[in-house]
Amino acid sequence: MQAKDLAEDYPVVHLRDSALDAARLIGSHRRPGVVVVDDHGHPVAVLPGSQVLRFLVPSYVQADPSLAGVYDERTAQESLTRLADNRVEDLLPDRDTHTRLPVVDHDATVLGCAAAMARLHSPLLVVLEDGQMVGVATAARLLDELFG
Amino acid sequence: MQAKDLAEDYPVVHLRDSALDAARLIGSHRRPGVVVVDDHGHPVAVLPGSQVLRFLVPSYVQADPSLAGVYDERTAQESLTRLADNRVEDLLPDRDTHTRLPVVDHDATVLGCAAAMARLHSPLLVVLEDGQMVGVATAARLLDELFG
Repeated sequence: MQAKDLAEDYPVVHLRDSALDAARLIGSHRRPGVVVVDDHGHPVAVLPGSQVLRFLVPSYVQADPSLAGVYDERTAQESLTRLADNRVEDLLPDRDTHTRLPVVDHDATVLGCAAAMARLHSPLLVVLEDGQMVGVATAARLLDELFG
Repeated sequence: MQAKDLAEDYPVVHLRDSALDAARLIGSHRRPGVVVVDDHGHPVAVLPGSQVLRFLVPSYVQADPSLAGVYDERTAQESLTRLADNRVEDLLPDRDTHTRLPVVDHDATVLGCAAAMARLHSPLLVVLEDGQMVGVATAARLLDELFG
């Protein structure tokens, strides 16, 4: 068994898609995040749902969560507009602080996948073949294959 | 809407359950991890699947993943035995380096939940009522409620 045999479909967004599309995709797929690809279809980042939320929460609430009031109609409309007005690339952390994209080659062994997830503390790996994304291998799928 | 309305069922293991049970639960539920509870049923940690894999992968492979060979019958039997012989508490990172348990009170607002996930970079929060776990709120569920 190789990495490509573990690869599953995963939600993907483009760097220039609206941030609202990314938020909705994470919500509807119920995954912890989405894979972000560039113009050539090459994966460049994983955008976690928590990063989208970071973008939504006013900075004074991030500094002091006790100031978080109710999420009312006005707040809802504001955050929807804010997401719709921004692109996925605007939500990504600075390149300097980028989390390394967790990737693995399609012919990596199961043990190689496990080692990469362990090293990167990542619950997923983007599986690549000739630079293109084949799918995503998750730690859960791997554990299911090994001990299920 | 409050945190308790976002709470979903989530796989739970006890500190003294076998590590193999935790591995199988993550695999069968296809979640990124499990919540770990103590003798009083109080959640004490989230055990990520990547941490279980870390425990499985020989240290020489973690240091140099190119040494990862195939996962053969012998390796499989060894790792199964290793998991069965250890408890969940043996898999948790040292207390000093513990990731802070991402918790939120049952009556936290949606904005409060979003702020906590953003601050902790966590895709999930354990929702507590009187110290007991009500369920888990995920970033995906929150985004679905807001923009779905």
